Amino acid sequence: MAEKTAFTIAVVGATGAVGQKIVQLLEKKDIPIKQLKLLSSQRSAGKKVFFANREITVEEAVPESFEDVDIALFSAGGSVSKKLAPEAVKRGAVVVDNTSAYRLDKDVPLVVPEVNEQDLQSHNGIIANPNCSTIQMVATLKPIQEAFGLKRVIVSTYQAVSGSGNEACDELEEQTKQYVNGEDMTAELLPVKGDEKHLPIAFNALPQIDVFQDNGYTFEEMKMINESKKILHDDALAIAATCVRLPIFTSHAESVYAEVEENGLSVKDIQNTLGNADGVVLEDDPQTQTYPTPLSAAEKEEVFAGRVRKDLDNDNGFHFWVVSDNLMKGAALNTIQIAERLIQNKWL
Amino acid sequence: MAEKTAFTIAVVGATGAVGQKIVQLLEKKDIPIKQLKLLSSQRSAGKKVFFANREITVEEAVPESFEDVDIALFSAGGSVSKKLAPEAVKRGAVVVDNTSAYRLDKDVPLVVPEVNEQDLQSHNGIIANPNCSTIQMVATLKPIQEAFGLKRVIVSTYQAVSGSGNEACDELEEQTKQYVNGEDMTAELLPVKGDEKHLPIAFNALPQIDVFQDNGYTFEEMKMINESKKILHDDALAIAATCVRLPIFTSHAESVYAEVEENGLSVKDIQNTLGNADGVVLEDDPQTQTYPTPLSAAEKEEVFAGRVRKDLDNDNGFHFWVVSDNLMKGAALNTIQIAERLIQNKWL
Repeated sequence: MAEKTAFTIAVVGATGAVGQKIVQLLEKKDIPIKQLKLLSSQRSAGKKVFFANREITVEEAVPESFEDVDIALFSAGGSVSKKLAPEAVKRGAVVVDNTSAYRLDKDVPLVVPEVNEQDLQSHNGIIANPNCSTIQMVATLKPIQEAFGLKRVIVSTYQAVSGSGNEACDELEEQTKQYVNGEDMTAELLPVKGDEKHLPIAFNALPQIDVFQDNGYTFEEMKMINESKKILHDDALAIAATCVRLPIFTSHAESVYAEVEENGLSVKDIQNTLGNADGVVLEDDPQTQTYPTPLSAAEKEEVFAGRVRKDLDNDNGFHFWVVSDNLMKGAALNTIQIAERLIQNKWL
Repeated sequence: MAEKTAFTIAVVGATGAVGQKIVQLLEKKDIPIKQLKLLSSQRSAGKKVFFANREITVEEAVPESFEDVDIALFSAGGSVSKKLAPEAVKRGAVVVDNTSAYRLDKDVPLVVPEVNEQDLQSHNGIIANPNCSTIQMVATLKPIQEAFGLKRVIVSTYQAVSGSGNEACDELEEQTKQYVNGEDMTAELLPVKGDEKHLPIAFNALPQIDVFQDNGYTFEEMKMINESKKILHDDALAIAATCVRLPIFTSHAESVYAEVEENGLSVKDIQNTLGNADGVVLEDDPQTQTYPTPLSAAEKEEVFAGRVRKDLDNDNGFHFWVVSDNLMKGAALNTIQIAERLIQNKWL
């Protein structure tokens, strides 16, 4: 059989925050596209989207949509992936899934290409894209783990509303306008759409992302914990997370404490390791107030790290600050990079 | 000499964010006031302030302002305290200082009344009010230390702009309006007035509060570290801080990891200890999405704690979330409570 040189790509959830970003990135990236199918729920079907100067009509995603599709990029929520990803696989497509539906499934590789590209080889038709807050953290933890060994991680996050989709961005925008106009702020969505209480996000901090689990942690916190262990191939890694939603539109930030195996390391050792890591940019110079922020990282492709310093009590402990665009590397870009590596390595 | 039943109080920095709050609180609190002197820089002198239905003219603070003053409450910046607090003491006043000028001076008690009231007895005319982010954290750490022993603390903060004064609130307000009007945001103040670079705070997160120290930590982070050790009377306490400024007007939040000496504790043990602590209110029930937020804590007097959970790897480790109004318990209220305890205990 002749080797394929162009591919039919389906984007499921094409009108959502991540789906829109995927379509934008596909225009700029190196995947040779034979045909692009934009799929969505029935509600959004019929919308028109411009791609490469051509108008594409969004169609309702049904099992038959995946006939002749080579790669299907899913980001339409876990229930859609549960229902339609197996249908896509059955029809010969490889699925890259942006939801949490398959991430902890032991037959599904969970991949950040810079971190564990080799895991892609063992796919059975579905590859899971990790949670946004996990991706940027493991991009910095992996080079440290490889160079010095990693014992323990404690992270507190500073997360943007776009992680909850376009509706959450609209809610922050609306509450901000209400504040400026001297009106009471109305909250109808955050912290979690289906939960009982809704709280204002503008000028506030919500220590709840996704629903609470029985152990008192939120699902977002458990995602960071469990996904990091899987991606870093270390079930024994001690790791804890506190996840907080903030009035920021784009980019998640993280305050990370990492304890390494190797003794006697300096700040410079960690800085060099991060600075040389694939996909990571070191922005770290206190003397010139150089450090990443959500606004400086927005629309960029890389993971940015700064504020590296040594714990004052534990010689093996280091603190640093990690920022990345949650819709780019945190979602759409990583999804596309997975597809690129599948093609380049002929692992489709 | 007959015991005093009413006191002459001076407020230095009366037109600032904390000073204004002090004046408001003095109206509501139990300190019997003979005379209230409102003092400021030359620039703000002449302004009129209402107090107990009477107009008081703000005067320029000079050494002679403190003649006959019993208690002087300073919050006009470190340099003003350095210059004028000794002048006030020389004239017989007891100073409660809200700046960092004297906090680590070993002859100056650094006090949160619920935590270390007894330290007030050793004052030599000056008592220091701790940093806002320190106060709310030690209010929760002290009962834990007392009940179970405290080995280690790692904190990441979520801090409001009002900690940088009224100007910083104006800057957030201005940038927010610029965003709503589709204009570019202008940054002229934050993260630090005197530093070279200024960065937008609206819809952003700045991992710098106060200037950088030689060890890579900011002054705010070192304040939290050093002040907590002093207030908790434990120089050997392992403690690290990452301080972040956010687009929030009022109330600081903190993600705290605390490691205790005692083994085998449950979440309930920590919750009960926090819930019974003086000045602390436990708001913690994941089942009903009950936890404190900056907006819910604003204008309140207490320190609010929630999201208590056990570390998943360390049996002695607990994570929790602490929120308090940074101008109230974090500054003005704690200052006034110190004055109240001095009077009640006859320790003036």
